[in-house]
Amino acid sequence: MNEFELIRTYFHFSAAEESIPLGVGDDCALVDIPPDRQLAITTDTLVSGVHFPADGDPGLIARRALRVNLSDLAAMGARPLGFQLALTLPELDSDWVADFSRGLALDARDFDCPLLGGDTTRGPLAITITALGTVPRHRALLRSGARAGDLVYVTGSLGDGAGGLHCLADAGDDYLVNRYWLPQPRLEVGQALIGIASAAVDVSDGLVQDLGHIAAASGLAARLQSELLPIAPQLLARGGEARAWALGGGDDYELCFTVPPSLISAMEFALVDCGVAVTRVGQMLAASGGATGVHCVDASGNPLEPGVRGYDHFR
Amino acid sequence: MNEFELIRTYFHFSAAEESIPLGVGDDCALVDIPPDRQLAITTDTLVSGVHFPADGDPGLIARRALRVNLSDLAAMGARPLGFQLALTLPELDSDWVADFSRGLALDARDFDCPLLGGDTTRGPLAITITALGTVPRHRALLRSGARAGDLVYVTGSLGDGAGGLHCLADAGDDYLVNRYWLPQPRLEVGQALIGIASAAVDVSDGLVQDLGHIAAASGLAARLQSELLPIAPQLLARGGEARAWALGGGDDYELCFTVPPSLISAMEFALVDCGVAVTRVGQMLAASGGATGVHCVDASGNPLEPGVRGYDHFR
Repeated sequence: MNEFELIRTYFHFSAAEESIPLGVGDDCALVDIPPDRQLAITTDTLVSGVHFPADGDPGLIARRALRVNLSDLAAMGARPLGFQLALTLPELDSDWVADFSRGLALDARDFDCPLLGGDTTRGPLAITITALGTVPRHRALLRSGARAGDLVYVTGSLGDGAGGLHCLADAGDDYLVNRYWLPQPRLEVGQALIGIASAAVDVSDGLVQDLGHIAAASGLAARLQSELLPIAPQLLARGGEARAWALGGGDDYELCFTVPPSLISAMEFALVDCGVAVTRVGQMLAASGGATGVHCVDASGNPLEPGVRGYDHFR
Repeated sequence: MNEFELIRTYFHFSAAEESIPLGVGDDCALVDIPPDRQLAITTDTLVSGVHFPADGDPGLIARRALRVNLSDLAAMGARPLGFQLALTLPELDSDWVADFSRGLALDARDFDCPLLGGDTTRGPLAITITALGTVPRHRALLRSGARAGDLVYVTGSLGDGAGGLHCLADAGDDYLVNRYWLPQPRLEVGQALIGIASAAVDVSDGLVQDLGHIAAASGLAARLQSELLPIAPQLLARGGEARAWALGGGDDYELCFTVPPSLISAMEFALVDCGVAVTRVGQMLAASGGATGVHCVDASGNPLEPGVRGYDHFR
């Protein structure tokens, strides 16, 4: 099997959607963007041995690679449109590629995000996905829109991604391992928050760091009340590090967003059908002396050091 | 310097263009697509040691990575809009990244294709670029539009990419080495050919193979007259393999396109201002017995074996 046969066999599952006049197989894919919407675009690379274990299940690697990108679309309030796949393989292992392709096709269908095109090359195993979505014109959720006084919310539960990564090799802890491999991009929540949330980000590098991006982009500080963090019982059951992972661990891919006090009830109403818990965890504050940043406090209001630093590839 | 400082320092050169309301620095970039145009999107990965020598000049690596993507836009008749960069680095070498970033910014400006966003990760050196462009609605140059009788043309000269790769280490052969590192995406030609060319492809894997894509997509055969191939004197001067490289070598990034006989003069007129030579090299034929494919003939019309096979990562 050569490169072209590989693409034909395993990567021709892009649905013939109305908005995609031309998918896999030409020099470019062609995509229609409705005139009342803007294109949102994001890219994430997953490198074997850095972002996932080299012996991981190929279908899970594929699904995780797509989901972490969809999470960025969710954080803008975008609806998925399609994605480009750059797949670098050390060798052509048909079984591996078949499993990878099956997992990818499954999530592409479930999230209504067809494969548009891409590139297959030989080299150390890595996956780069560029996901496209659309948002209503001028209404995307940005990091920079928060105001002092806005409340800070998160979806789902935090720390599971870091906890899952920590126990990937353990048998039996299916909940956490599953949370690591198959993060749930909060696409419905993001779209429902348009016109309500003043700022949003996805929690990929740890809550303190990602909320810090909202604070910095909005020229504010933020107070994070650690006792309010939503932590799954399965994570708490693993003991001591649960709260540190919830504050500073990465890989959760939940949304963190800010809501003006006047829109709290509108938010609760808008999210009724999303089936995802949201939890208030803090508040945006004026930057005292111009210093933006996130201050964690414990139940008594005393300052708290997060304990786990946000993810940084080069530190 | 950490990951965020790296991005801030080296990858914040995306121009504030009207069509790009939001560039580097949020969860996604946002892009406006004019209602009378469609989005064209393409992805190419360059892996160190596979697509370029590991000790190559970082600025040239960056420019080559962008240009091979722009060449795919050119083959659709698209105008560049912007690009996503996924950069995987084994370590944070500031000098290397500074050189890379300078080269990238230079070509991003020259080709009017700003950086929109992307991802930096740690791992074996590789660059994946996803380039976006726009084409007038329903008028993109596809591979599938050729008709029997259409003439086959190529831009520029062929074989230089393969010749350049072959003598990268030689001092003094600046023309060929330069042609390898800095292919010239034929963006103006592609745009000028809209409404004139019946099919187009960029010559990245070798002319025989890439013209074969037009033939297969159009359900035709093609005859390629090897004595007509445009070969640069600098390549001919290197002797025996010049013609084989021109037929089957990769990395040229010239355009190959087909034109109906009735539009030959329109084509010549449309390309007057592009400053690029185009050469007729063959003709599209009905697929005899249903077999699509490219037949090479020599000056006497006798069948010729190309000698160099098109590029395939997994063969």
